[in-house]
Amino acid sequence: RHIPYTPARYSATEMLERSEMFYSLMNLRRSVRFISPEPVPKEVIDNVIRTAGTAPSGAHTEPWTFVVVSDADVKHKIREIIEEEEEINYKQRMGDKWVQDLKKLRTNWVKEYLDVAPYLILVFKQTYGILPSGKKKTHYYNEISVSISCGILLAALQNVGLVTVTTTPLNCGPQLRLLLQRPANEKLLILLPVGYPASDAKVPDLKRKDLKDIMVTV
Amino acid sequence: RHIPYTPARYSATEMLERSEMFYSLMNLRRSVRFISPEPVPKEVIDNVIRTAGTAPSGAHTEPWTFVVVSDADVKHKIREIIEEEEEINYKQRMGDKWVQDLKKLRTNWVKEYLDVAPYLILVFKQTYGILPSGKKKTHYYNEISVSISCGILLAALQNVGLVTVTTTPLNCGPQLRLLLQRPANEKLLILLPVGYPASDAKVPDLKRKDLKDIMVTV
Ligand SMILES: Cc1cc2nc3c(=O)[nH]c(=O)nc-3n(C[C@H](O)[C@H](O)[C@H](O)COP(=O)(O)O)c2cc1C
Ligand SMILES: Cc1cc2nc3c(=O)[nH]c(=O)nc-3n(C[C@H](O)[C@H](O)[C@H](O)COP(=O)(O)O)c2cc1C
Repeated sequence: RHIPYTPARYSATEMLERSEMFYSLMNLRRSVRFISPEPVPKEVIDNVIRTAGTAPSGAHTEPWTFVVVSDADVKHKIREIIEEEEEINYKQRMGDKWVQDLKKLRTNWVKEYLDVAPYLILVFKQTYGILPSGKKKTHYYNEISVSISCGILLAALQNVGLVTVTTTPLNCGPQLRLLLQRPANEKLLILLPVGYPASDAKVPDLKRKDLKDIMVTV
Repeated sequence: RHIPYTPARYSATEMLERSEMFYSLMNLRRSVRFISPEPVPKEVIDNVIRTAGTAPSGAHTEPWTFVVVSDADVKHKIREIIEEEEEINYKQRMGDKWVQDLKKLRTNWVKEYLDVAPYLILVFKQTYGILPSGKKKTHYYNEISVSISCGILLAALQNVGLVTVTTTPLNCGPQLRLLLQRPANEKLLILLPVGYPASDAKVPDLKRKDLKDIMVTV
């Protein structure tokens, strides 16, 4: 069954205004590694996840699971798993080049925000689905689809004034999957600590590329 | 150098309202395969790409190139490359299961929108960078970063009332890269035809999963 699609239509002036406003809003987004412990209304988080769930996906497989952790014990266990692996990443596994490339961000393996942030959102990609018959269902382009959905999630957070830092905890996926009792078809893609920024939050003074350095017109 | 970060702060009521409005806006997004030939202001496209360029990226590598094609000849060459490969995908390469999985979308290898849409945005991921010294620079997690940036791009399009369909032209990357004269470190990730929806545009009558089927609370 196919149905007509007649979305909102704006005038050229309105489009230009709306595109500028959305750019200004998104351009203020920064990855924030200092998060306030203040509580955040759960309904807002629910709406942010609902928004992420509107993303397109290969063959409409919707191959995502968002695990929202607020339990202090579980957050602490997550921190222990990640800090242990990250210390190995920084000291042994990844080599001097990686450590050098991250220097300007001043990150290291201590991740206080994993205890402090009111919510940790762990985004799992479902690498395949299970049909009612028990057979496996192919999830085409699941990593791309879930990453797109994370982009929309980040926009939704920015829109309500919450902050996060996009992280891909290296080598922690299997342990975190077991801790959170997620099934074998789910793999951790991204972990987002979410909350208000700490009152003394600082961010690296990075510049973004100009439009001419990212766009080519043909 | 690190600088203080003090973004907008909304009241709980405002956050809830803003989260609902953004969800409603994004929930109206659909992949549209019937695009109107009407012209779209280029400044709006510029702002949409600017917005995509605010995405986070592994170690701030910004590993994306957005090629915006409006030239009719180049659009037609792109169509020829894609239709030729897609016909093989549907008839031989991908097998019955893939064709079956796509049936509800009623898609096939004929892609009129590639000629008709006023803009085609071809999103390339830079699999590595080139340092001033000529050495290769590692682009950590470039596919995830560029996909996140596409999620933000889709949100920016939806915000101005433009439509697209997210596509990953299978096996066309190398030919399209050569056609568009992109360097060897760039690989096509996603192609987005962009415009207003055709006045008689139809979309498959799909449902999205409920919040309880995509979110787990711990
Ligand atoms: C990574 C990815 C690849 C896709 N590839 C195609 C494609 O090649 N052709 C197409 O018509 N749609 C493609 N789609 C669109 C999906 O079919 C569509 O998002 C899904 O059916 C859900 O519909 P909606 O976007 O209207 O919510 C793709 C979507 C994603 C995220
Ligand atoms: C896929 C991906 C992985 C990332 N991994 C980490 C990480 O493990 N730790 C971290 O502190 N930041 C991480 N970041 C955040 C980047 O360092 C940040 O986006 C970049 O420095 C640009 O800063 P901005 O987000 O404030 O614009 C990651 C970002 C992306 C997109």
